[in-house]
Amino acid sequence: MKVIVIGATGTIGKAVVEQLGKRHEIVTVGSNSGQYQADISDIGQVRALFEKIGKADAVVVTAGALAFAPLADFTPEQMRVGLDSKLMGQVNVALVAQHALNDGGSITLTSGSVSELTIRNGASASLVNSALDGFVRGAAIELQRGIRINVVSPTLLTESLEAYGEYFIGFETVPASRVALAYSRSVDGAQTGQAYKVW
Amino acid sequence: MKVIVIGATGTIGKAVVEQLGKRHEIVTVGSNSGQYQADISDIGQVRALFEKIGKADAVVVTAGALAFAPLADFTPEQMRVGLDSKLMGQVNVALVAQHALNDGGSITLTSGSVSELTIRNGASASLVNSALDGFVRGAAIELQRGIRINVVSPTLLTESLEAYGEYFIGFETVPASRVALAYSRSVDGAQTGQAYKVW
Repeated sequence: MKVIVIGATGTIGKAVVEQLGKRHEIVTVGSNSGQYQADISDIGQVRALFEKIGKADAVVVTAGALAFAPLADFTPEQMRVGLDSKLMGQVNVALVAQHALNDGGSITLTSGSVSELTIRNGASASLVNSALDGFVRGAAIELQRGIRINVVSPTLLTESLEAYGEYFIGFETVPASRVALAYSRSVDGAQTGQAYKVW
Repeated sequence: MKVIVIGATGTIGKAVVEQLGKRHEIVTVGSNSGQYQADISDIGQVRALFEKIGKADAVVVTAGALAFAPLADFTPEQMRVGLDSKLMGQVNVALVAQHALNDGGSITLTSGSVSELTIRNGASASLVNSALDGFVRGAAIELQRGIRINVVSPTLLTESLEAYGEYFIGFETVPASRVALAYSRSVDGAQTGQAYKVW
């Protein structure tokens, strides 16, 4: 299969490229790196990206920004970061990919454990990750041509412990290589509308 | 208690006013009706609203628009309707109310059953309602001064069968009076971070 990985040079993205690259042809995409560049928060750039790449069988998104802040200080503008980037960036990819992928193709998005394992400063993360899980449930039943959609919900990566560990004290981490297996389940499996929790 | 009901003249809002009005002083708010008017998608108007009303013990929101469309045709602009109105409108109220309400106050938002009971044309409803459930889980653990937050998740109202029944064939409806009880549980109860499913 030809698999597009958006966010291919991130911590999860690199592990996904390594895991899926064992069996599939990988096309790497980043905002500033990879074989192709696109800002997925702009659906016009997503459409242009799929036109440039041409037909593919699967797309995986491991990209998107979120703001973390105490609830008492959270502003709508900070909420907007996650809505525009991690949420609508991935929704934009799904909306375009449903038409651009080959029959029987798959779309795999990325949410995160803060949807349910709530943390201080994480109100936007809970909102955005839950929204992604919900969107995937809703979209799965309407996709046509045998196209599937799933979402991987990782908890804190072992590789990210230094950067984000202070927010996740007491959490067990998972290595990116283990998270990458869930993307394989989605791409190589037959399920749709699932949230693969890696926690 | 003094309870602000935003969306007080809607189908759920009227039932909430009747149910909560049995025990509490109600302040009604609408976009174009009620004792006070505000467009809650604009946090500036939400701040001005709470300043005009003064101290209160609880706020209930039963307002917010969503777009319904086939996934194949859904545009980011249609997604934006639900993000700006039903989602961020209610989040704006929560962000302001956490500071404006009296100690021990409560915030009650409204999501909906399409978060899990997915339907055709409902991808944005699944996204937005799941986002609200997630936001409430995340926000509950950070609220201070004993302030609580919950969300009521109603399914199709009996009163809305004529308007929306074609989207919900086979669903059992619930009367608004029964949905209103869930808001009483939230306002008069002691729980926080809960999604009260009325389905």
